This record gives sequence, structure tokens and C-alpha cells, in this order.
Amino acid sequence: MIGAGQMARMTHQAAVDLDLDLVVLAESTGDSAVVGGAPYRLGSPSSWADIRAVAEGADVVTFDHELVPNAHLVKLEQLGYQLRPASQASSLAQDKLEARTVLSTSGFPVPAFAAVSSPRDVWAFAEAHGWPIVLESLGGGHDRRDVHLIDNPSQVTQLFDSQPHESATWLAEEYIDVAAELAVLIARSASGHVALYPAVQTVRQGGSCRYVLMPAPLADPVVEQASLMAKSIADGIDATGMLAVEMFLDTGGQLLVNELDLRPHDSGHATIEACETSQFHQHLRALLDWPLGAPTLRSAAATVNLIGGSSAISPSAQLPRALGVPNAHVHLYGKEFRPGRKLGHITALAASTEEALDIAQAAADELMGP
Amino acid sequence: MIGAGQMARMTHQAAVDLDLDLVVLAESTGDSAVVGGAPYRLGSPSSWADIRAVAEGADVVTFDHELVPNAHLVKLEQLGYQLRPASQASSLAQDKLEARTVLSTSGFPVPAFAAVSSPRDVWAFAEAHGWPIVLESLGGGHDRRDVHLIDNPSQVTQLFDSQPHESATWLAEEYIDVAAELAVLIARSASGHVALYPAVQTVRQGGSCRYVLMPAPLADPVVEQASLMAKSIADGIDATGMLAVEMFLDTGGQLLVNELDLRPHDSGHATIEACETSQFHQHLRALLDWPLGAPTLRSAAATVNLIGGSSAISPSAQLPRALGVPNAHVHLYGKEFRPGRKLGHITALAASTEEALDIAQAAADELMGP
Repeated sequence: MIGAGQMARMTHQAAVDLDLDLVVLAESTGDSAVVGGAPYRLGSPSSWADIRAVAEGADVVTFDHELVPNAHLVKLEQLGYQLRPASQASSLAQDKLEARTVLSTSGFPVPAFAAVSSPRDVWAFAEAHGWPIVLESLGGGHDRRDVHLIDNPSQVTQLFDSQPHESATWLAEEYIDVAAELAVLIARSASGHVALYPAVQTVRQGGSCRYVLMPAPLADPVVEQASLMAKSIADGIDATGMLAVEMFLDTGGQLLVNELDLRPHDSGHATIEACETSQFHQHLRALLDWPLGAPTLRSAAATVNLIGGSSAISPSAQLPRALGVPNAHVHLYGKEFRPGRKLGHITALAASTEEALDIAQAAADELMGP
Repeated sequence: MIGAGQMARMTHQAAVDLDLDLVVLAESTGDSAVVGGAPYRLGSPSSWADIRAVAEGADVVTFDHELVPNAHLVKLEQLGYQLRPASQASSLAQDKLEARTVLSTSGFPVPAFAAVSSPRDVWAFAEAHGWPIVLESLGGGHDRRDVHLIDNPSQVTQLFDSQPHESATWLAEEYIDVAAELAVLIARSASGHVALYPAVQTVRQGGSCRYVLMPAPLADPVVEQASLMAKSIADGIDATGMLAVEMFLDTGGQLLVNELDLRPHDSGHATIEACETSQFHQHLRALLDWPLGAPTLRSAAATVNLIGGSSAISPSAQLPRALGVPNAHVHLYGKEFRPGRKLGHITALAASTEEALDIAQAAADELMGP
């Protein structure tokens, strides 16, 4: 597994159950998965030599983030390594413009979009779709995003003037009046078997996913349509392993696909306690083309992400207080505090998602301070 | 943690959730917990120097088996190390004669017993309690047991004549006509808080526990009495961490305490999936004197132990077939096959313990061969 963040850490925990030799490519011995005991090699996900070294001898090569240059993935495949998901599928998680293009070409509803590289392009796009619009830079993976909500033509000029690279390409999108965000997690094995998890609702604050409700407390037809779409997309892009399809439900009741993630996803952490098979076990089964486990939901659940705020805290120091909240399941990632950093998550199961959220949030408040 | 077997391996998995630095004292890098990624020091559980080295700097010292000489544990305490459970409590898991004596003195029902060191002692015991009787050697911990069912006086003479050490002491016990074996798992924190798990029924074949039903499908008053007894014992012996109280239900309907284990126990593996808090999470919380988690049962469950039979198998090779059994949760311990060795366990949750057992057994059959 290229990458050694919290997804690798939790995948390693599942790998221990199955006695699998999961080796991670880590950038440092302080990486979350390494701290959690995963066997590792040190190296960079952007170095071809390091990627090749960790791939050598592996039955399957995969990754826990989107930062591996796609050219390296293609090269691995050309050399005969078993890369799962395939480079073509994973490019859709790496390149939002490509994902939008493929999805809309295949008939899936996505926000109106265009690639733009000048103020004139943007104005033309806004002319067609109305203000405001969203401009997103197209460089790099998920962690390096540069997103702007643009209200009028002069803001466009300002933004382009402030950029160091004149010729940069942006993704222009219509602004969606979002009623709810949801995600559908689906596992697809190398030979095409699928296991569909109940759709979740995700709630964002300040750009990060703050909490997740499982199952999504949305109308049945919406959830059903979202699930059908996710299944079609998984088959259509030939996904292998876990796939998260993130969607918007707009105020008009329409579902629009926002983003694809081809790996375990932070909208799926509740599966550890709430589902018959966790997304991490399922990911391993799917990657190895083994029979998938049941995605059955055992109980309503909520997950609250622990995200570093403005003042420094030590999650471990507050842990006993959080564990004093009955029925809160704390997962720490072994990371030092940094503002905006995901330090862990807390899941609770209860009779309803609201009740579960109250429990998980109470424990999160203890851990992170009020 | 002194010892690096499967209990340490699964405790490590729980420690990763809580970002705890659990270091194990392992005899080799092939030990189950080391293979599972637990940080380790190499050394012997019978070497004082090795024990002291791993204890150095630890907030709490504990163990995953009963093979640490009690004198070493006492010495750790004298030097001010925080040993949990305390040496006095853990001696009850190490020395069955002491456990029987303490329990019967405290008024808990145990099979009639006596320490015997000659055929004459045995005959006198049998005179009082009737044939057959059980003779058990009193050397060492659980793994080195020498147990004999003795039907008549001449077998006693034969047994004593065949022993190399004439003066050896044995535990003589009345033979119990067992209707069922059960175990009650209870966590007790350093400051005396307790969490009581639902009693389980354990079923033995050939000396090893083959499967476990949770909750025990026995009459309510029996289960209630067993639970009350376990709670009194935990308090009475000042247990810290997980305690398993193993009991016999005899054909007359009486409960008798058989054995105490002061650590996570193989009768408690179903807690991983079936309970709100697994015995491994609970053990860590109790040892650190943190709030205990709820022991609530979410679903009826059964666990089948994977024990090496007469012909060699590779658990990993058959794993995909076992995973093809819906709702089977496989836990492998990363151990090479050896006859009689515990290689892993499989848990299933279902509407009834019978149904759960069918699932877990079907998966075990796939994994171990018919």
C-alpha cells in the first residue's frame, strides 16, 4: 500500500485479523500506519524507485491516497504488477476534470462544468450558467485544493491576476444550492462482485467533513437513486476495492455526483462498528478478489471526525474523559496536533442517527475541548 | 505486556484504536503479537532481567499468560512497578490449589479437592468422595497440564510408580458429572469499577475449548447465579483487568467454580463483534483505570476455535473459502500449524446462538478441512 496515513493504519488492523502481509510505503516512521505497527518501507509516493521497491514481490499494489503520480501507476501496470484499482480508474479520483467528463459523458448527473484558463473563459461559463460560480484549481490531489466562490466578473480578474502561473487551468462549476451531501460506499472485487453499503449523509464545516450519519436520514427514493448510481458508476469505471461516490442533493431534489474516491473513505468509518463487514476488511477482500462480506447495517450510527482546531490539544491526554461517555468508540490516528488535521474519529451506535450523533459529539467535545 | 501470544496480538489491535504504546515481551519475532505489528522486546517470561527491562518506563505492567514466575511479579511490585493484576490475584490463575483453597475458604462452591502426594493420600480422598477421581499435576501454568481420570486404587499406584519425582504434589478432585461448562467474563478497573459480560457456554472436546455460545443458552437462574458469583469473586480477589471465571454446572443443577483466568480469555472472543466493548478494549481500560465500556450484547453469537488437528494445514491458504461463508468473522493468529495449537477463531452473529454456531462452524470446516 503506497501511503501510510490513517486509512493504511486501519487497513492494517483489518489485515492482522486475516494474517495478511500488508506493507506500507511511508514517508516517515511517524506516519499513522507505522505508529500503528504496519510493516513499512520508507520512501516517497512520488518517487518511482520507492514505489517500485515496495511493489516488488507484492501480490497486489494499492494506495491510501490520491497523491501518487498516475504515470507511475501506468508504469507499474506495464511492468506487470497487479495494481488495484487500475490506473485508469484511479485517475478519476486524482483528476476532477477527468472524473466530471467521464461521468457526464456516461450520462450521470454532475454540476455544469468547464475547463477554463482565462477570465474570458470564466465569463462565458458564467454567462451560460449564472453567478455565482465555483473555481477550483486543477493541480494535484485532494489535499492541495484551492477553491473559490466567485460572485462577479471583477473577482475573476482579481483571481487570475493574483496567480503566479498565467496559463493555469481551472475547473469552473455552477454553484449548487446544496440541501444535503451524501456518500455511497461500495466495494467491488477484481472479478466484479459488489457489496453496497447503506448511503450516508455527510456534513461539512469549514471545508472538512465534520460528521457522518449512517444510514442517511433522507427520503427513500433519494437514497435508492443514489445507491443505483453508485453501483452503475462502480461497474462503469471498473472500480476495484472500496469506492466512495460523494453526491450533492440540491434544493430542487436533484442528485449530482461530486467526487469519486477509490479507497476506504472517511465517510465509511462507521462501518467498523455498525456493519457486518467494515470497509477496511471489505477493501482487502475486494483487492484480493476474495468473497466480499455482507455490508449489512446492524444499527443506526454516527461518526464525528476529530479535526485539529485553532488551539493545540493532545488527544491522548483527554482520552479517558472521552471514554467516560457511554457507547462512544474512539479511534485515534497516532498523529500530533496540527490545525485542520484529522486526528481521529468517534463512532456511536444508537436507536437513531440523531441519538448516535449526540453521543459521538459529546465524546468528541471531551476529547477536543468544547 | 509480558508474553506475545494471540491475546497480546488482539490487545495490540485494540491499543492501536486508543493510540496506546503497548510493548510486548516476546520470545521470538515469530510470536503472534509481533507478527501482528506490536512493538516488542525479545526475552523470556521466566528471566527476571528481561521482565525488568520491558517493565522499565511502563505506566502499567501486565501479562498475556500464566507462565511468569510469581516471585518475579512480587519483586516487580516491591520495586514500585505498577503491576496489574497484582501478584496476589494472578497467583490464583497460576496455582490451581491456591485458587481452590481461597475460593472454598471464601464460601464459593468448588469441587471437593485435596493436595495429595502419595497413593495413600489418594485412596483416603477417594474413600471420602467416591471413585472416579481426577488427579492433576501441580507444576507450572495452563499449558503444561497433566490430568488423569482415575477409576480405582490400582490405577493410582500405577500413576505414582510411573512418575519420575516421587515427592510430587497432585491436586485430587472429585469427579463432576458435568451438564454444561460456562464462563463469566468480567472487567474490573484498578479502582474497583466492574463491567459484567453475559455468561457464555463453553464446549470442550479433547481438552480444548472448541466453541463458545454467547449468551449461554442456560436457564436464567443459573446464569444469574453464575454472574453474581463472578462479581463477588472479582471483588474478593481484587482482580484488575479482564477476569474469566470458568464454572461447571453439574447434572444436579449445582454451579461449581473450576478456574480463574486474569486476562482476556478465549471464551470472550465473541465480544469483539457481539458486544459494545470488546474484552481487549475493556482490558486496556481496566488496567489503566479508565472508565469501562458497556459490556452490552448486541446480538447472539458463537465462536469456534481453530485448533490444529492431526494433519497439517495452512490457514491462510483456505482463508478465501472460509470468507465465502456469509457473516463469518475470521481471526487468524499468524501462527504456523502444529497439532493442538490454537491458530485462530471464527465468530458469527445471528438471531440465535445455534444459528451463529452453524455459520462459524461452516467457516471453520472450510478453513481447517472437514
